[in-house]
Amino acid sequence: MSVSNANITRPDAAMLVIGDEILSGRTQDINTQFIATKLTELGICLAEVRVVPDLEEHIVSALNTLRDTYDYVFTCGGIGPTHDDITADAIANAFGVGISIREDAKQILSTNYAEGEAALNEARLRMARIPDGALLIHNPISKAPGFYLENVYVMAGVPSIFKVMVESILPTLKGGPPLLSISVKFSKPESEIAKSLEAIANNFSGGSIGSYPFSKDGIPGTNVVARHFDQAILNAVEYELKKLT
Amino acid sequence: MSVSNANITRPDAAMLVIGDEILSGRTQDINTQFIATKLTELGICLAEVRVVPDLEEHIVSALNTLRDTYDYVFTCGGIGPTHDDITADAIANAFGVGISIREDAKQILSTNYAEGEAALNEARLRMARIPDGALLIHNPISKAPGFYLENVYVMAGVPSIFKVMVESILPTLKGGPPLLSISVKFSKPESEIAKSLEAIANNFSGGSIGSYPFSKDGIPGTNVVARHFDQAILNAVEYELKKLT
Repeated sequence: MSVSNANITRPDAAMLVIGDEILSGRTQDINTQFIATKLTELGICLAEVRVVPDLEEHIVSALNTLRDTYDYVFTCGGIGPTHDDITADAIANAFGVGISIREDAKQILSTNYAEGEAALNEARLRMARIPDGALLIHNPISKAPGFYLENVYVMAGVPSIFKVMVESILPTLKGGPPLLSISVKFSKPESEIAKSLEAIANNFSGGSIGSYPFSKDGIPGTNVVARHFDQAILNAVEYELKKLT
Repeated sequence: MSVSNANITRPDAAMLVIGDEILSGRTQDINTQFIATKLTELGICLAEVRVVPDLEEHIVSALNTLRDTYDYVFTCGGIGPTHDDITADAIANAFGVGISIREDAKQILSTNYAEGEAALNEARLRMARIPDGALLIHNPISKAPGFYLENVYVMAGVPSIFKVMVESILPTLKGGPPLLSISVKFSKPESEIAKSLEAIANNFSGGSIGSYPFSKDGIPGTNVVARHFDQAILNAVEYELKKLT
């Protein structure tokens, strides 16, 4: 499924966050916002996010739904060396392919240790287990690679590593025309501008207008964000919006 | 579906975040971590999170799947006064019930304005549209109520309002025995303790052990979190873990 808007088609994507620590509240997920921002810039529409626990059947089920539905799927979490890191196995299972320690991954991993391959104990070798047919994603920080298979990109959960992995795959993704945006701030509650906004939105073919309330020092305000592919149309909407402030 | 562990059953839950602003990267979702933490304390297992755009068919489809699967579903976003606030309509549609301006909601809403009901313009009245059969959720901040229908709790996206709404419904939810946890910090990478951890995890019936790597000043470390219903068992695991540090 791709997203069509004003006769322009953009690829779409889903993010799958894998990890009990997000669901228990222990950890705040910040990877989604990072990749969302990057995808928006690239003209890829992030259309859905799911967070699932470290349970193979949940990962497989969500992954198979998402990879059938969207052009791209990005995952984070569960590719480390411990017993609860089951993402690589779940991905292999979802694709119905084998998984084993791969020489290319093992070689890259060994460069992280002064002792080279001799440092690769059983736990570290777990990070060289790659589903058959997958290609590696570079990890300049701790070397343990991510991987991608068809339209699924499997990356680390640690935010610093997730970021560099995303940066490394971005140039290989095919985006559409970037969705541009303008933002106008109102020192009024949403309910005072809602009717005028709706009128503008109804005449705003091929774009969208979002209204985001906030409160500063107890005073309600509203940020209005208009999105469109065409900067000239956005400029005209910005002019209309500013007349309402 | 409830989560059974060591012959103890806990209710489970899903969170549905509704909003283009999360998917575009404009806004960092912090509501999920808030409710996740509260549910964990209450002995309810947050088992899945989904983020969907402000599109009715996406909201309806996700909601119907989640409410059939989990004991509780919590939503945030899309209940304001503007044209892009479509959550209440989507919920009514998902349940196959009507929706209209309700007197109880209208009366509560009017208390937010010095002019009372006279201040309720068309946009504000939109916030008094409640699906048939739903009960209201109190909003002491801006008065516009949330609502719940069967096992679905519909709340605001603005974090300060989401929080007070969650606080107001928590006492009405039925939790199980709280899942307790202990955490042990290691100044070692995961890969050096993975084998010993797995041995401990294999002997840790009815609980789970998670391993979370971090990096401080470039030095890798690992937080290990053990979760169980029984504090005595957790204490024994903590003793075992500390021997590894």
